[in-house]
Amino acid sequence: MSDQETPVADLRQMVREFVAERGWNQFHTPKNISMAMAIEVAELMEHFQWLTPDQSRAIAKNDKDLAAVAEELADVICYAFALANELDIDVSSAMRMKMEKNRQKYPAEKYHGRYK
Amino acid sequence: MSDQETPVADLRQMVREFVAERGWNQFHTPKNISMAMAIEVAELMEHFQWLTPDQSRAIAKNDKDLAAVAEELADVICYAFALANELDIDVSSAMRMKMEKNRQKYPAEKYHGRYK
Amino acid sequence: MSDQETPVADLRQMVREFVAERGWNQFHTPKNISMAMAIEVAELMEHFQWLTPDQSRAIAKNDKDLAAVAEELADVICYAFALANELDIDVSSAMRMKMEKNRQKYPAEKYHGRYK
Amino acid sequence: MSDQETPVADLRQMVREFVAERGWNQFHTPKNISMAMAIEVAELMEHFQWLTPDQSRAIAKNDKDLAAVAEELADVICYAFALANELDIDVSSAMRMKMEKNRQKYPAEKYHGRYK
Repeated sequence: MSDQETPVADLRQMVREFVAERGWNQFHTPKNISMAMAIEVAELMEHFQWLTPDQSRAIAKNDKDLAAVAEELADVICYAFALANELDIDVSSAMRMKMEKNRQKYPAEKYHGRYK
Repeated sequence: MSDQETPVADLRQMVREFVAERGWNQFHTPKNISMAMAIEVAELMEHFQWLTPDQSRAIAKNDKDLAAVAEELADVICYAFALANELDIDVSSAMRMKMEKNRQKYPAEKYHGRYK
Repeated sequence: MSDQETPVADLRQMVREFVAERGWNQFHTPKNISMAMAIEVAELMEHFQWLTPDQSRAIAKNDKDLAAVAEELADVICYAFALANELDIDVSSAMRMKMEKNRQKYPAEKYHGRYK
Repeated sequence: MSDQETPVADLRQMVREFVAERGWNQFHTPKNISMAMAIEVAELMEHFQWLTPDQSRAIAKNDKDLAAVAEELADVICYAFALANELDIDVSSAMRMKMEKNRQKYPAEKYHGRYK
């Protein structure tokens, strides 16, 4: 079941059950989950911290490094979905709305090849 | 189209097109994207920084605050998917594998109501 | 030699020598150091992540936890001084200027017991 | 009064007074301060996020950018000292101990020009 066949809701449900089965909702205040996300992102950054831009791209070619990065990325998204679960946010709608805002803020022709 | 009907791949495709239309892949080294994620998570944390645990939960009841938090959360996930796009990581598989690892690391009966 | 007798410059010099002796200035771009700081702060946050406010204060009474926190804090400040070294920023002046700005932004009478 | 003439204790005292005058110690749990540090470091990173290594070094030559970076750096150190104040940690001792540990972990001859 790849990203092609997996609805976002299925992954959210997987996270929801994991948390509920351990009675961890008591720890899952939005404040705590946001901290947990920051800590997981830092573990992700750790893989790239001292690398040159090219070295950081080359991680895609090293199976072991790529698997480690994928695992850290999964951790971040698990907590992102845990926060969505606690606050009852529809991720797909939130992303579509934000992307529409971004499209207006950064018109493609004006920002082509430039980020500011 | 809610999380129920949206495959993860659709959201990834939306991010992919946004980046490609602006020629921003040149900036999207894994290193840079991981930094961008950390910055977006910090903006999310900013909403909860000085709140008590209860106050942070109460954000769910304030429409304006909740919308702002949803927007920051969307930013984090957009970059998470941008990283998955650059490194060709299947998010659903990575999450399922990590969750299986977590289930074994934290057996439900042993960790019930305790996180360590 | 406690904080009472230690000029900021002495600590900066200690960091400068450590970096120079290892030929690490080549890695110490401002970008890389700022990432390193974020990673060290995350390790600091990890100690407090799931704690209640009171539990996080109680860390002061546990010698082992306090020593661990002090070590993470030292890591953050080491990198902060490493960045000051690379960019030739006088930390004392920068802090005095920022504090003056903060005093004007947050007049004591108006913000007493309130942060916004 | 530059870093040469400023004892660390003076800067800590400046932070202590600022916080006390506003009655903000109630918000300054170690948990909250660690979050605040993470947020300020993210604002620092924001200056370097999309820059190449060389561009990030060049910030030293742009007065306006350098002043902005110095201000963010000051914010981080202010919170670092606020945490030291709350937990009664001597920063100079903690840094000297950590640096001694680092010297043993990374012998200069073995790690010259290499970080791992």
